[in-house]
Amino acid sequence: MIGGGRGAFIGAVHRIAAHMDGKAELVAGAFSSDPQRSKDSAKDLLVSPDRAYGSYAEMAKAEAAMPADKRLDFVVIVTPNHQHFPPAKLFLEAGFNVVLDKPATFDLAEAKKLRTIVKKSKKVFVLTHNYTGNVMVKQAREFVQKGKLGNLRKVVVEYPQGWLSTFLEASDQKQASWRTDPKRSGAAGCMGDIGTHAENLARYITGLEIDTLCADLTTFVKGRKLDDDGNVLVRYKGGAKGVLHSSQICIGDENMLNIRVYGTKAGIEWRQEFPNELVVKYADRPREIWRRGNDYISDHGKKFTRIPFGHPEGYLEAFANIYLEVFRAIEAEVTGKKQPKDLDFPTIEDGVYGMAFIETVVKSSKLGAKWVKFPKA
Amino acid sequence: MIGGGRGAFIGAVHRIAAHMDGKAELVAGAFSSDPQRSKDSAKDLLVSPDRAYGSYAEMAKAEAAMPADKRLDFVVIVTPNHQHFPPAKLFLEAGFNVVLDKPATFDLAEAKKLRTIVKKSKKVFVLTHNYTGNVMVKQAREFVQKGKLGNLRKVVVEYPQGWLSTFLEASDQKQASWRTDPKRSGAAGCMGDIGTHAENLARYITGLEIDTLCADLTTFVKGRKLDDDGNVLVRYKGGAKGVLHSSQICIGDENMLNIRVYGTKAGIEWRQEFPNELVVKYADRPREIWRRGNDYISDHGKKFTRIPFGHPEGYLEAFANIYLEVFRAIEAEVTGKKQPKDLDFPTIEDGVYGMAFIETVVKSSKLGAKWVKFPKA
Amino acid sequence: MIGGGRGAFIGAVHRIAAHMDGKAELVAGAFSSDPQRSKDSAKDLLVSPDRAYGSYAEMAKAEAAMPADKRLDFVVIVTPNHQHFPPAKLFLEAGFNVVLDKPATFDLAEAKKLRTIVKKSKKVFVLTHNYTGNVMVKQAREFVQKGKLGNLRKVVVEYPQGWLSTFLEASDQKQASWRTDPKRSGAAGCMGDIGTHAENLARYITGLEIDTLCADLTTFVKGRKLDDDGNVLVRYKGGAKGVLHSSQICIGDENMLNIRVYGTKAGIEWRQEFPNELVVKYADRPREIWRRGNDYISDHGKKFTRIPFGHPEGYLEAFANIYLEVFRAIEAEVTGKKQPKDLDFPTIEDGVYGMAFIETVVKSSKLGAKWVKFPKA
Amino acid sequence: MIGGGRGAFIGAVHRIAAHMDGKAELVAGAFSSDPQRSKDSAKDLLVSPDRAYGSYAEMAKAEAAMPADKRLDFVVIVTPNHQHFPPAKLFLEAGFNVVLDKPATFDLAEAKKLRTIVKKSKKVFVLTHNYTGNVMVKQAREFVQKGKLGNLRKVVVEYPQGWLSTFLEASDQKQASWRTDPKRSGAAGCMGDIGTHAENLARYITGLEIDTLCADLTTFVKGRKLDDDGNVLVRYKGGAKGVLHSSQICIGDENMLNIRVYGTKAGIEWRQEFPNELVVKYADRPREIWRRGNDYISDHGKKFTRIPFGHPEGYLEAFANIYLEVFRAIEAEVTGKKQPKDLDFPTIEDGVYGMAFIETVVKSSKLGAKWVKFPKA
Repeated sequence: MIGGGRGAFIGAVHRIAAHMDGKAELVAGAFSSDPQRSKDSAKDLLVSPDRAYGSYAEMAKAEAAMPADKRLDFVVIVTPNHQHFPPAKLFLEAGFNVVLDKPATFDLAEAKKLRTIVKKSKKVFVLTHNYTGNVMVKQAREFVQKGKLGNLRKVVVEYPQGWLSTFLEASDQKQASWRTDPKRSGAAGCMGDIGTHAENLARYITGLEIDTLCADLTTFVKGRKLDDDGNVLVRYKGGAKGVLHSSQICIGDENMLNIRVYGTKAGIEWRQEFPNELVVKYADRPREIWRRGNDYISDHGKKFTRIPFGHPEGYLEAFANIYLEVFRAIEAEVTGKKQPKDLDFPTIEDGVYGMAFIETVVKSSKLGAKWVKFPKA
Repeated sequence: MIGGGRGAFIGAVHRIAAHMDGKAELVAGAFSSDPQRSKDSAKDLLVSPDRAYGSYAEMAKAEAAMPADKRLDFVVIVTPNHQHFPPAKLFLEAGFNVVLDKPATFDLAEAKKLRTIVKKSKKVFVLTHNYTGNVMVKQAREFVQKGKLGNLRKVVVEYPQGWLSTFLEASDQKQASWRTDPKRSGAAGCMGDIGTHAENLARYITGLEIDTLCADLTTFVKGRKLDDDGNVLVRYKGGAKGVLHSSQICIGDENMLNIRVYGTKAGIEWRQEFPNELVVKYADRPREIWRRGNDYISDHGKKFTRIPFGHPEGYLEAFANIYLEVFRAIEAEVTGKKQPKDLDFPTIEDGVYGMAFIETVVKSSKLGAKWVKFPKA
Repeated sequence: MIGGGRGAFIGAVHRIAAHMDGKAELVAGAFSSDPQRSKDSAKDLLVSPDRAYGSYAEMAKAEAAMPADKRLDFVVIVTPNHQHFPPAKLFLEAGFNVVLDKPATFDLAEAKKLRTIVKKSKKVFVLTHNYTGNVMVKQAREFVQKGKLGNLRKVVVEYPQGWLSTFLEASDQKQASWRTDPKRSGAAGCMGDIGTHAENLARYITGLEIDTLCADLTTFVKGRKLDDDGNVLVRYKGGAKGVLHSSQICIGDENMLNIRVYGTKAGIEWRQEFPNELVVKYADRPREIWRRGNDYISDHGKKFTRIPFGHPEGYLEAFANIYLEVFRAIEAEVTGKKQPKDLDFPTIEDGVYGMAFIETVVKSSKLGAKWVKFPKA
Repeated sequence: MIGGGRGAFIGAVHRIAAHMDGKAELVAGAFSSDPQRSKDSAKDLLVSPDRAYGSYAEMAKAEAAMPADKRLDFVVIVTPNHQHFPPAKLFLEAGFNVVLDKPATFDLAEAKKLRTIVKKSKKVFVLTHNYTGNVMVKQAREFVQKGKLGNLRKVVVEYPQGWLSTFLEASDQKQASWRTDPKRSGAAGCMGDIGTHAENLARYITGLEIDTLCADLTTFVKGRKLDDDGNVLVRYKGGAKGVLHSSQICIGDENMLNIRVYGTKAGIEWRQEFPNELVVKYADRPREIWRRGNDYISDHGKKFTRIPFGHPEGYLEAFANIYLEVFRAIEAEVTGKKQPKDLDFPTIEDGVYGMAFIETVVKSSKLGAKWVKFPKA
């Protein structure tokens, strides 16, 4: 693991998600850019001192030299955004499979470069847009794919949070500090951090591609250097329309990632904070509540179900579902088999798309919230 | 009553709302532009045949000639939009108090003319934006006015419906027919019919005025002549931002008018389909659910409460709350007293504002969803 | 109207419910046992002074003498329980149709006497167990009747309130005062006031009759003279089992009347505080949310629907639905027609059953919460 | 691990819960009473063949002989109820710490014997009543302990399921098979399987002890040998009253374990299917929704929180919270330290209490649902 030391958030999530099914073990890491902090964190995490590194460069070198039986199956990178590309490049080129936290990179150019590196490496590369790991999100996607919704007309996706409604970065809160810093986070704050989740979720479910968009980003908190709120109108290829908004100043909201998709035959609604349910709405018959764990759930969804209906799975299980697929891919890679055709995780293509989204909303907003063509990725 | 005959929707609502508290009686009407239908409807409604008129012009003439003790206290106009202005003008000028269904008129120019007429008439004029009659909406407004939310930052208001997700106007469904007809409805379909409700609700609660907006209206159903969906980004005077969207093709949605308002100190959330609750969210303490009928509700809200907490009031009670204020105003007018200072109903100013909203979103959309300055009303 | 003067609760509800559809007018009343209060109340209610009576006896005499064209179509009795039987008897015997608030009488013996009187009178007699007026409750009953649930197995019905969690009757709160007074309320407090609603709702939906029951009533608040909480186990004829509990000390609960019924094929769930929805649950397919106002609602339910789906109807509309049936019955009675076969309102039989329920739970509880046979009514 | 092989349910849950925080590894097991199945399961679970045993007796013998550095820190027993006591006894007496799935044993006598064995062994013994691992349940308990609810008056706890609404045990569904078999499950079916969870949850939160109870158990499904439904009235020591019901024939219900507790000052409500929220209700101020992960949550609750608010934790995290405490206890035991004073997990005392509950409800029901004194445990 690269990053994820003391004070980090997403590193711990990755560890739990990867451990949950008893299929992985944390054996080495460069947990912080501060060598001492890295080693202290290793101790916390029961990682052997001889595999606790002061830097990822050091780690890449040492681990690449390990004998086959001790060699890492994969590396997880959970550093702030500006530290995504360098270690990803290094480890891929050193022959390691890589799991990278979203967004892919610091900017779109880097993402495209990383795509080239991934392709060349022939290694497994996974980007953890975790919300697509939810079973009911997978069910929603199948509904769209099988035509249950008919032709899609409208998408409403939102991700409001409230935790940055004050100038939290003035304190030493580590998460607030880097996520609002353009040097570490990239061109966007809120839109990069969570707007990309909303975009990714919408695209995963609907398969729709953005044609043009109009984004109005705002920095509400005085002194903040990046946007903490963004409202986006979307025109999808094929004629569907969308509203995407996310915020970190929606005081009192937690992680209210919600999506609604409306077609000519039916509409669906999914809420991240109550992830075990998917509402399906029709013109002429009662609404349905589809619930995780039931027999009527699709076979694909069932593969990602650990416990029976009525026992709620949550954020970590969804995250671990991404890892289940990671493990399938890596097992194939390690044992020299072909990659399964039905792997269901976000790839570098999603990463490039997400970075294009960030660049486009920032561009639109800077032009005064004008409509901007979504670039070819 | 003008309009509201057989096959009408909102006329019946007005009758129930006006009757509910035992303070009004329906005694005369021109219920349809078709004289026979008007008379048949009068019969249905137990209106005496000698006060059932074939046209509103006929009615205005006859009723104006009535002796004082039989004279109408007020006239309710519930015709399609293109038939708002002419009867409103006629009755106001004939000295009647007027209750008019929203939107005010066919277009903004008419609304401004009507404003002049209203002012000149010194009569009571009420526009029935009924959702503001909800007790918890009034409570929400008080929260804003008393500073409980701090400075306002963001408004998310939406009004999706699904009833026009097919080409319903091809059938003889009367509601679909006129509401999608530019000659009767005006420049906008969905945005005029329900987008204006969303706008009015947001303005009622927040007091915010729109500075500029960017509207993307769509007609999804083939053959339809007006928009059936609209997404609007809003910049309010003073710096708050807004997202307003409404639709009539959100299949399976009923009247999902929801509003969220976020300030620096707290956020609120109200849902029309569950109107007895108002959620208040804070940065650092548990959410609260404020419920109609409790002692902690404001004195103003209590005035509009007929039954104890836990016994749900609904759409009709909210509508009747508008009428409670209508009656207060008319009683003062009829008895020659000053109008009470604290009257709480939508006025011709709201009507003009609403028509300006319609014109502005249509204009923006026609320009390709460009930002357009909201006109001075 | 008998009762329902200043300080009363249910009288106002009856007036709104009866007025709502423009089919009734309040023209006479004995609104209080205090003659002055009765007359003052009449003034409040715009009742002509010459038909404002100092007592119901006086009123019965005077009104019976009215000429046919001024004669009351029906009398509504909304006094405390101990004052149900005397006026009901008097007016029925004087040839008036009677609407009586629940529970029927002070005790079971009176209820049975009243039954005899009703039968003899051939007048319309209606008991306002208002919750059965809800459209989705009617839908639930139809589901049972049509076999959608299969054979019924279990009923869970509850009605917790919290408004009597303190010794409120020590204050001058009129509602608390009589409802906790055995001289005015009868043998039961909470169970008589709202436990009977729960019983009636369960029986209306399921048609099940109680075979035996075991009731544990409690008076939690010191100084209170009647039960303020009751938990009842029920064995229905035919083998279904039930849990019925209600309370007035469930602090913070409002009117949480909820019912669930489970059969061999499906289960249903309805909540009074969100009355426009009915949840249907199955073993092997997604839950459904049936919502008032949709085309798929039964024809019978549609008759009690004033406004389209998504516009919530509430407590008063459900109450007014009872009155719609009252008016149908009375119109037939007044015009000398046969009573319609499909009248859907609670009758004196429901009243007798309800009084038997009260007596039986009180008896069971006094025996130490032993199982007691439900008496033949 | 003893039990938990192919076809098992709760074994997998224990493995995930124990793995989640990276603090345990599965290294040995007797996963089935069928030796071959046990070994096959070991393979599935990546357990080394030399530590995959054909029986728990064999395992106890072999593992007890392991050198200190390979010795098991604890044993997890997840067999059907009739196979709880024998392995628990064996491993405790062989000096192993033991985690045992609920209910403790086959009957009360066994549970008491096990208590003696546990005490004598001085080993760590944990019973996995997992629902008490939920953070918001812990918060609820703190509210009670700190007096926020005042004196407790009423408890309503229910656990309806619907998965046994047909004669599922006629198929080869392994879970249905043993859970409805009196030889493997014990004296109760539904009440033993999930009624005990309801009882345990209520006692954990309230601290109330049952004085007497009256239980009406039913077997609705023809051919079934144990109860599949039970309704219980409870009188707690100190005067509070309770309603406890659970069922496995509530068709369409999943794991609707809900609890409400009402005191003189406030009431609380928690629902297992939406476990991140706890509702608090008051007489005179708005309801509050307390949500996991917020700063206002108690320090004790925060210790069991892996991820920020708004990212739902679920069943597995709650289960893993029990294990977090198991690990604390075992770490102390293994390192020879004193057991921490604040350990928060269910003990053999809870197990004995739960078995007493089962015996008492069965006894009451057999007597015709009479009130029975709860035995001293």
